[in-house]
Amino acid sequence: MRRIDQIEPFRVMQLLERAKELEAEGQKIIHMEIGEPDFPTPPSVIEAAKAALDSGDNYYTPSTGNPKLQKALSQWYLGEYGVAVAPERILITPGTSGAFSLIYATLLEAGESVLLSDPGYPCQRNFIRLAGGEPLNIPVSPETRYHLSAGLIEHHWKAGTRAAVVINPSNPTGTLIDDGELKKVADSCRRLGGYLISDEIYHGLTYGAKARCALEFSDDAIIVNGFSKRWAMTGWRIGWVIVPDSLIDACRRVMQNIFIAAPTLSQYAAIRALAASDEIEVMRRAYDERRSYLLSELPKLGFDIVVEPQGAFYIYANVSRLTDDSRSFCWQMLEKAGVAITPGEDFGSYRSDQHVRFSYATGLEDIREGVDRIRRYLSLATK
Amino acid sequence: MRRIDQIEPFRVMQLLERAKELEAEGQKIIHMEIGEPDFPTPPSVIEAAKAALDSGDNYYTPSTGNPKLQKALSQWYLGEYGVAVAPERILITPGTSGAFSLIYATLLEAGESVLLSDPGYPCQRNFIRLAGGEPLNIPVSPETRYHLSAGLIEHHWKAGTRAAVVINPSNPTGTLIDDGELKKVADSCRRLGGYLISDEIYHGLTYGAKARCALEFSDDAIIVNGFSKRWAMTGWRIGWVIVPDSLIDACRRVMQNIFIAAPTLSQYAAIRALAASDEIEVMRRAYDERRSYLLSELPKLGFDIVVEPQGAFYIYANVSRLTDDSRSFCWQMLEKAGVAITPGEDFGSYRSDQHVRFSYATGLEDIREGVDRIRRYLSLATK
Repeated sequence: MRRIDQIEPFRVMQLLERAKELEAEGQKIIHMEIGEPDFPTPPSVIEAAKAALDSGDNYYTPSTGNPKLQKALSQWYLGEYGVAVAPERILITPGTSGAFSLIYATLLEAGESVLLSDPGYPCQRNFIRLAGGEPLNIPVSPETRYHLSAGLIEHHWKAGTRAAVVINPSNPTGTLIDDGELKKVADSCRRLGGYLISDEIYHGLTYGAKARCALEFSDDAIIVNGFSKRWAMTGWRIGWVIVPDSLIDACRRVMQNIFIAAPTLSQYAAIRALAASDEIEVMRRAYDERRSYLLSELPKLGFDIVVEPQGAFYIYANVSRLTDDSRSFCWQMLEKAGVAITPGEDFGSYRSDQHVRFSYATGLEDIREGVDRIRRYLSLATK
Repeated sequence: MRRIDQIEPFRVMQLLERAKELEAEGQKIIHMEIGEPDFPTPPSVIEAAKAALDSGDNYYTPSTGNPKLQKALSQWYLGEYGVAVAPERILITPGTSGAFSLIYATLLEAGESVLLSDPGYPCQRNFIRLAGGEPLNIPVSPETRYHLSAGLIEHHWKAGTRAAVVINPSNPTGTLIDDGELKKVADSCRRLGGYLISDEIYHGLTYGAKARCALEFSDDAIIVNGFSKRWAMTGWRIGWVIVPDSLIDACRRVMQNIFIAAPTLSQYAAIRALAASDEIEVMRRAYDERRSYLLSELPKLGFDIVVEPQGAFYIYANVSRLTDDSRSFCWQMLEKAGVAITPGEDFGSYRSDQHVRFSYATGLEDIREGVDRIRRYLSLATK
């Protein structure tokens, strides 16, 4: 099979298309399938972008990013996690998508592999295949809070494995990895001669717990993060990756070619965003309120939430009590109840038939309406 | 050798770093090495971006782009070239860098090859290597106006060759391919069962001639273009690629993963840019004036311009009368005359020792000063 034929579409896109058809017919659809903040970008960031537009600087930045943004992020790491990161180790990318393309292009040779959790973020598999590598999808379950553990990594690591990816908090499960386990995972990757790649894009969107940066445990972890989620800046396409000194030169060469540089205006906006802590706290509290509501209501409807999600804006629910085919279940829910949620198959194949993902990046009023609709639909369906 | 070790840095970056050192010491350096417009983005585009910021839409667009921009480009193709292109064939990318990453990820399997001109745009080789492919660098000379010809393509095409790339006008030579030859090139690629990839990023920056779109000759050519050069929008990272219907689905799958989408704000700005023809004509005339000046002065100093460049903002000069080592020549020019130009080695290996590239994306006053400095330096050096 040609590489391109291994690149899977997001299956939820078909569901989204059908949702749009129904909306075009006049139906209101409740969207709990989308992994994008419903909040607009904070006003202070918008104002900073306008000021940057007035400055007349619309030119390329250096490939590795605007040095002011690198420096601001370096200071931010000290304040946020108490870790010292030299600015030149912080490479500015077009979103975390760009960060992953960069990392796999730099690390992988044809046929080399990367350990991923199943379920996990579906693009990971495709980034790795596009770089000529092999994704090794490791089933994870509630016992490890749906995360790769040191034990799983030691067990599945093989010749040619270059890295293991931890998404913390996880997409789709919203669960945090145990702090002690994160340290062990970092130690295992180092011992095995590879890299820990810590996807921290949902950091800051945590509730009653704090996600730890992998750099707190391992100086050579590769950190991927960005402004899309916590700062509600998806359309700006701005993220970063922190690499060990030994990878900076290789990454710079790749960046000069595949990006030239990240968007200039977005980089100015990002500098301001780092100071927008009050504005992002308002969003975090709203997510938390929605999460609490769903955590209390969904189990009553038959959705089992085995590990409490403490981060991101996702709830990964076991639907075994309701169906043995989560895909059909989601389609029925859309057609009969007008509620869109994502079937497990978009995140892997391990027990995907038994799971769905709810996103609460949608206003609380809509979420309440969605829950009411699901309740009505299920009570009819089970009669 | 690992793939990453085959990715070459831009050698001119070292020269640029040295130039910055000299500037830090108080020297004025004349920059004729940089391939980035010196003009700021047109004011009407800046205003459109501010309006977009006020609209509150900072969310992802569809992966293939904002449908309004696709439609605007479709109409633009009709006006600019008289070719009808369905909007859904126009895929919006983060710059042409993104467009090339996308195309090679979609087309190539490990070991498959792409024909490139030597000299040519250096990133091409690296895009292809990063996709696991093999760049076939074909020496081109003044006889074909430094372009791949149908004859060269027929001669060098081999099993596993998937495409040939024509950069028209060319970087580094600024030359246009002959219209009849472009048609023959398109015919050859089709006959050989592969694709013509036409890099048209310098379209519109032509002087006394017009570059033809490859779609005028072949409906299945792949067109790469963007807003960076003609519209002076480098930092916005916004471009596009036109693909045949048969490639849309595969490209969309790749785009969903590697980009999610191009920057939202830049897409709004781009829609406005397409109506900024007066503003871009002012820039084109300024480039033309600079070009005329250099075309009259450089030959007097010993730089041979074998084929008149009619496009882009580059002049590719043969320096055989002045040196047999263009790299040392450029370094000496920087150190002794304070003028930065790019040695041929950045664009390939064929006769690169005998060539340098002048960029006139620099104000005319500086260019005059540069020519004066070169004259003084050469008259001293040859005494």
